Amino acid sequence: MATIFSKIIAGEIPSYKIAENEKFYAFLDIHPLTKGHTLVVPRQEVDYIFDLTDTDLGEMHIFAGHVARAIEAAIPCKRIGVAVIGLEVPHAHIHLIPIQTEKDMLFSNPKLTLSSEEFAAIAQAIRDRFQV
Amino acid sequence: MATIFSKIIAGEIPSYKIAENEKFYAFLDIHPLTKGHTLVVPRQEVDYIFDLTDTDLGEMHIFAGHVARAIEAAIPCKRIGVAVIGLEVPHAHIHLIPIQTEKDMLFSNPKLTLSSEEFAAIAQAIRDRFQV
Repeated sequence: MATIFSKIIAGEIPSYKIAENEKFYAFLDIHPLTKGHTLVVPRQEVDYIFDLTDTDLGEMHIFAGHVARAIEAAIPCKRIGVAVIGLEVPHAHIHLIPIQTEKDMLFSNPKLTLSSEEFAAIAQAIRDRFQV
Repeated sequence: MATIFSKIIAGEIPSYKIAENEKFYAFLDIHPLTKGHTLVVPRQEVDYIFDLTDTDLGEMHIFAGHVARAIEAAIPCKRIGVAVIGLEVPHAHIHLIPIQTEKDMLFSNPKLTLSSEEFAAIAQAIRDRFQV
């Protein structure tokens, strides 16, 4: 059965898309820790990120790096934090989280509630700054 | 002035080394969240990980992937979590954390206190399983 991320990539479930290429897809986390919190996933349905080949793992992080630079150009923050946990959805994903302090990275924090208009505006601002 | 990580790489400050190559160095975090918590750093003194070139960023994560596979072969865990925060030491580093649950990734958790013998045994077990 397709994972929720595969359904998002296929457009069966809507997402606020940030960027995509032939191997990877980036979109806003709908339960963000901070504004601009983005997920990067491979099109390939791999559960565990370290089951990717070396080439795909390296390319996924390079793609995520381009997304991170677009996020920090669009969203006021000190850094983009990176996290891979991988115990929830069985489809590898990298969290990119704009942070001001280390505490902004705590997954135990309450998630933000944003309107559709806010999500759309954030995604547009990041997309506008994305460079291949 | 050299960062603490550069002093560790140079051997001026001792560390429990896991692996190294011409560009990167991996060693046990001395304040671990869980047993086997490892840091991967570039020899190059770059503060922010997204200031690395695409090539170096990709290679750093590929090297970290090999370290992660050695950790999970040595340490009982469900996954190796990945985190990059980067607001403390001004030298880019990837945290590799053996986790059983998402909560094991919380940097607000108390850090483990281990003896020198325990650190040495953990490092040896991981080193023995590292494959280039």
